Amino acid sequence: MTRHDGRAVEQLRPVTIETNYLMHPEGSVLIQVGNTKVICTATIDDRVPGFLRGQGKGWITAEYSMLPRATAERTQRDSSRGKVNGRTMEIQRLIGRALRAIVDLEALGEKTVWIDCDVIQADGGTRTASITGAFVALTQALAKIHEEKPFPKFPIVDYLAATSVGFVRELGAVLDLNYVEDSSAEVDMNLVMTGSGRFVEIQGTGEEATFSRDELNQLLDLGEKGIAELIALQKNALGEAANLVGSTKEEA
Amino acid sequence: MTRHDGRAVEQLRPVTIETNYLMHPEGSVLIQVGNTKVICTATIDDRVPGFLRGQGKGWITAEYSMLPRATAERTQRDSSRGKVNGRTMEIQRLIGRALRAIVDLEALGEKTVWIDCDVIQADGGTRTASITGAFVALTQALAKIHEEKPFPKFPIVDYLAATSVGFVRELGAVLDLNYVEDSSAEVDMNLVMTGSGRFVEIQGTGEEATFSRDELNQLLDLGEKGIAELIALQKNALGEAANLVGSTKEEA
Amino acid sequence: MTRHDGRAVEQLRPVTIETNYLMHPEGSVLIQVGNTKVICTATIDDRVPGFLRGQGKGWITAEYSMLPRATAERTQRDSSRGKVNGRTMEIQRLIGRALRAIVDLEALGEKTVWIDCDVIQADGGTRTASITGAFVALTQALAKIHEEKPFPKFPIVDYLAATSVGFVRELGAVLDLNYVEDSSAEVDMNLVMTGSGRFVEIQGTGEEATFSRDELNQLLDLGEKGIAELIALQKNALGEAANLVGSTKEEA
Amino acid sequence: MTRHDGRAVEQLRPVTIETNYLMHPEGSVLIQVGNTKVICTATIDDRVPGFLRGQGKGWITAEYSMLPRATAERTQRDSSRGKVNGRTMEIQRLIGRALRAIVDLEALGEKTVWIDCDVIQADGGTRTASITGAFVALTQALAKIHEEKPFPKFPIVDYLAATSVGFVRELGAVLDLNYVEDSSAEVDMNLVMTGSGRFVEIQGTGEEATFSRDELNQLLDLGEKGIAELIALQKNALGEAANLVGSTKEEA
Amino acid sequence: MTRHDGRAVEQLRPVTIETNYLMHPEGSVLIQVGNTKVICTATIDDRVPGFLRGQGKGWITAEYSMLPRATAERTQRDSSRGKVNGRTMEIQRLIGRALRAIVDLEALGEKTVWIDCDVIQADGGTRTASITGAFVALTQALAKIHEEKPFPKFPIVDYLAATSVGFVRELGAVLDLNYVEDSSAEVDMNLVMTGSGRFVEIQGTGEEATFSRDELNQLLDLGEKGIAELIALQKNALGEAANLVGSTKEEA
Amino acid sequence: MTRHDGRAVEQLRPVTIETNYLMHPEGSVLIQVGNTKVICTATIDDRVPGFLRGQGKGWITAEYSMLPRATAERTQRDSSRGKVNGRTMEIQRLIGRALRAIVDLEALGEKTVWIDCDVIQADGGTRTASITGAFVALTQALAKIHEEKPFPKFPIVDYLAATSVGFVRELGAVLDLNYVEDSSAEVDMNLVMTGSGRFVEIQGTGEEATFSRDELNQLLDLGEKGIAELIALQKNALGEAANLVGSTKEEA
Repeated sequence: MTRHDGRAVEQLRPVTIETNYLMHPEGSVLIQVGNTKVICTATIDDRVPGFLRGQGKGWITAEYSMLPRATAERTQRDSSRGKVNGRTMEIQRLIGRALRAIVDLEALGEKTVWIDCDVIQADGGTRTASITGAFVALTQALAKIHEEKPFPKFPIVDYLAATSVGFVRELGAVLDLNYVEDSSAEVDMNLVMTGSGRFVEIQGTGEEATFSRDELNQLLDLGEKGIAELIALQKNALGEAANLVGSTKEEA
Repeated sequence: MTRHDGRAVEQLRPVTIETNYLMHPEGSVLIQVGNTKVICTATIDDRVPGFLRGQGKGWITAEYSMLPRATAERTQRDSSRGKVNGRTMEIQRLIGRALRAIVDLEALGEKTVWIDCDVIQADGGTRTASITGAFVALTQALAKIHEEKPFPKFPIVDYLAATSVGFVRELGAVLDLNYVEDSSAEVDMNLVMTGSGRFVEIQGTGEEATFSRDELNQLLDLGEKGIAELIALQKNALGEAANLVGSTKEEA
Repeated sequence: MTRHDGRAVEQLRPVTIETNYLMHPEGSVLIQVGNTKVICTATIDDRVPGFLRGQGKGWITAEYSMLPRATAERTQRDSSRGKVNGRTMEIQRLIGRALRAIVDLEALGEKTVWIDCDVIQADGGTRTASITGAFVALTQALAKIHEEKPFPKFPIVDYLAATSVGFVRELGAVLDLNYVEDSSAEVDMNLVMTGSGRFVEIQGTGEEATFSRDELNQLLDLGEKGIAELIALQKNALGEAANLVGSTKEEA
Repeated sequence: MTRHDGRAVEQLRPVTIETNYLMHPEGSVLIQVGNTKVICTATIDDRVPGFLRGQGKGWITAEYSMLPRATAERTQRDSSRGKVNGRTMEIQRLIGRALRAIVDLEALGEKTVWIDCDVIQADGGTRTASITGAFVALTQALAKIHEEKPFPKFPIVDYLAATSVGFVRELGAVLDLNYVEDSSAEVDMNLVMTGSGRFVEIQGTGEEATFSRDELNQLLDLGEKGIAELIALQKNALGEAANLVGSTKEEA
Repeated sequence: MTRHDGRAVEQLRPVTIETNYLMHPEGSVLIQVGNTKVICTATIDDRVPGFLRGQGKGWITAEYSMLPRATAERTQRDSSRGKVNGRTMEIQRLIGRALRAIVDLEALGEKTVWIDCDVIQADGGTRTASITGAFVALTQALAKIHEEKPFPKFPIVDYLAATSVGFVRELGAVLDLNYVEDSSAEVDMNLVMTGSGRFVEIQGTGEEATFSRDELNQLLDLGEKGIAELIALQKNALGEAANLVGSTKEEA
Repeated sequence: MTRHDGRAVEQLRPVTIETNYLMHPEGSVLIQVGNTKVICTATIDDRVPGFLRGQGKGWITAEYSMLPRATAERTQRDSSRGKVNGRTMEIQRLIGRALRAIVDLEALGEKTVWIDCDVIQADGGTRTASITGAFVALTQALAKIHEEKPFPKFPIVDYLAATSVGFVRELGAVLDLNYVEDSSAEVDMNLVMTGSGRFVEIQGTGEEATFSRDELNQLLDLGEKGIAELIALQKNALGEAANLVGSTKEEA
């Protein structure tokens, strides 16, 4: 059985990553994963949050938002409602945590990188597209200032990308769910992995359903394959800056 | 003396209006005025606000926002601060009021059109670009449902566009100020006008400065010229739907 | 055709300005424009907002509010709703900006003047009455401390007053609209002008209507006349302090 | 030893109650107790809060606020801080509760009376002046609609006034504390009593101090005397409407 | 006539005070007054609020909250509603003020003690149980650090407890009202008193009712008796630390 | 190497589950997992959220909070900060989602169960203790009303418990981390599983670290063992009600 958009179950949607998308930010990307479109920017700030002050370490923090008409029905703005909703909070905490796992915060030094992921158009997988795009924006931003040699070594120690996998009725295990598939999935799992194939985050959830250990393994296999393909696309988008990632020798 | 971007004082920046920019909204536009880029969407809702219920009239309301890195320095999100700032409020009220001036709200019937203007990149003139783009998104959205004949006549009675004029030190009166010019302007004026050359809104402000009646007239002359050019571009972008605007005969 | 309160179209309502209305503030005024009554106070603070610190410049900022029963229907307090509404924000930004246009902020030095305009009774024109009254409260407050010679010269460089003009059905162009006229006006314009007849702010709005350049000029003529009369009343209310305004010679 | 304003310890400050102070509200009063000035208004609303719906009973609710410059130092507005502070909440709950004690809520029927007390100038005793003034505004408002015979009997069953008493260093027990006395009082007590000499509310507080039962009795004696004087002033201010209060016979 | 739980009108409910209830706080107590259960903790902070900085004085501040299901019907959390309600504010201000009356803030020095009272189960009298329990938690916390001799003398100068009294239909004056009695009380009074029998706070309220001076005296008599019993229980719970309270000799 | 509290790496902390802990809620539990103590309550409400109305389905929703002194340092209340923090949101969404996975929402019918988890004392694993305890409170609440036969079958289809596993420096993979272990863990994973050994939720996170597939499998093995032990304890605590869970035959 094929998917309603014609993909095979183990196939990603078409992905494009446009770098230098905006004129102001240090790093900026428009990532498209099928019909999902996210603007990811990276801003470098020479201060750190209070809990890190004076420790010689940096920080990565993220904010995530959707335009009201990124979705089929108009969504009320968080600013109109006067508070950030729970889903948004979960996602922005995930993005920040995931990026911190592949950044050497000591090498970054006392800087904060603000990641902003703004979803222009949503068709499923906005949080994983945000992570995949944000990695590129972050790398680009740090590469830009790297020329001024502010770091003892380049602070990004590995690649990072994210995708979703899940069990969809009548299809079984599928890679990179779009909105229609996500809505009908019984199990939904977001995976964040590194270029060296290690896990950073596994978030698997039964939606009024449960899953066995065997089913978990099926999903992990699919996800590993998808992540490897996404990282190849990131390298391509980064061009020369791709070589800085994970370069291990300390620089004087 | 020429302007730092090479324009003559009476010259608009290059303007492009891309329609059907997003897949979900009834009307959506990416408008670029020089480096200023705004996504404008129009959403049609079959309810009206409480104060209009049962009167057979419709309403147009607008929300305006900027991505945090639309600007040179990162701006904190309204949702993080927990409230909408004063400038944002002023702008979204202006956009809604301006559009209502060229819509026959009785002909619209008991519907609300939500206009969302999200600034992706800011380089001066974001509110006037928002109005100019929102007019196209609104027209497109109403044209789309017009085929189902929900209106006694097409509700948009005239074209509408907006631009800025001002006095800039060493340049004198200029049309369509970019960010650098706007920051150093002594007098800043936003004009919203119709296709028939009438005023909808004049907002002229001395920034720690004042201006004479003669100077006011200079600015109005420049603005009229710019608006006429913008409306020509809107007609072009709308294609066939352009003919619906202001068509006066009642339809059965 | 005469107006429902018997005035001619080019006639202001009766205006009184009572100075030293309250015991605590440095400057305080009760201004009555017809039935509209506003308490305006000026508070001098020896700090400036963050963006001005260390620049040797001062600032004027304003807050505006209405008592719940200033209006015919009770209005919910902003504090109960937990946020300031858009109209309030627009007005308080306007008041602050208008006053800054006639204050030499360098001469003021690193001080902030807080202007509070609280509408006790509303019958149209509350924002223009606020500006006209606030000018007097501000002048009074600065005159009071002027004796201690804190300024290189008196910081107020010109008079400032505001009024409204508009097109009302069956009356045509009228000066100083009361609530009933304002509610039925097709065009509504607020003018802020100086003692030397220059514009500080023009805010003209078609209310689901538009206006021509000729009509604009009619409104401006009416407004200029009204402003001149208001400034004469301000001079009277200020008494001796009136002479300090715009005195141009630098003082040692 | 006399008080710094020359009063005897058992003497009220000069009190004036100006009725019909504003044009819009059903009842409105400017009450002055020495330098303390409060505008009290009463608004009649034909709805009741949810918890009373369908029970044939009415409700009295109150809001209290101070203008920013009612005080010697400017106070930040609740609306700027985004929340009502604890002191304000306590006072407005007290005002509402006190008035409800002398209103027959069944006779009032399904109506809410909104009481607004806005302090224009503060010099101690703003909450007790608010209650004393609000009683007059409330009576006036109900008297106004009483002519249309909406009530089985006039709903106000007794007079109500409030004052403060306390122990001030070097003065001992004093009546009606002004701000200076209140700031140095060791014990501060607010009393709300009826025309028939019964208590509605006693709030006695040691300010980092305590008081004995004998001292309590001294304060209560002083307070009873002051309340009786205030009620005489209320009757005077109410004129003819004074006779409606507590008239016990049921009307057809 | 006996009370529905079998008590005599002048009888307290069974009271237990369990000290060291939690592992983290400097002082912590579970107090049970009948079915009312409150966790009271005391936290010592080496900073003082801004208004006290540099004065060598300390401060006591309190927060009060109820678990959603402390009550028969589930109560919405303040955090979900985004603001603290008026009743909560009143209570937490009362608790802090009451405790400050028996603490020598100079002897405390520049420290703040945070009192948290969290109602686990509510059956009337939660604010008075909070005060009675908070006194024990506070004493315990200060006794714990007293060994390190940070104070010139032990800062607690007297015992403090609280109870409620009131007039209940068909019962007359009663001590220590439970929820059912409180709901039907015509007069409700909270008393806070010291170990030496002096008043700290009297809050007597007619609930749509009033009370005479004689009735007031009846209530005060009952309250004095109850407070004395509660203080005996506090001494018992405090064990050795009980002897520190009110020890008057200055320590070097 | 043994753990600092003497446990073996694969050993749970001592767990006690006290049912009927509070008098008001339909279900209530005090669960203790080592020093972590959480009060879990279940409240049955006969309404459903708007998105479910009229569909014959029920809902489970959860709120989670910590007392300020549940922690070693006092934590500011969400209600004082005016908003719920991101961590709290994540946890309460997790609790609700996990419980919904083992409830047949059609069998529940148009009811909402509100779960409240309030942490009295925190020493790591508060979210997993909350889920384990909430399951018991929920079962107890539904068992209580089950006698009135409101359900076609008992709506809880399986057992549910949660625990944490992780990699701690010098210890390797450990089960049920306390606060000290959690703070130093490189990988932290929360597992929610059913009585039949299926997964409901896996949330594994590298804390500035990553983990391999082999390491993942080690953690899952440990977690499965711990969950089985917790479910045995739940059965014990539920007594007779334990037999209702997962009873599959439809009841008339």
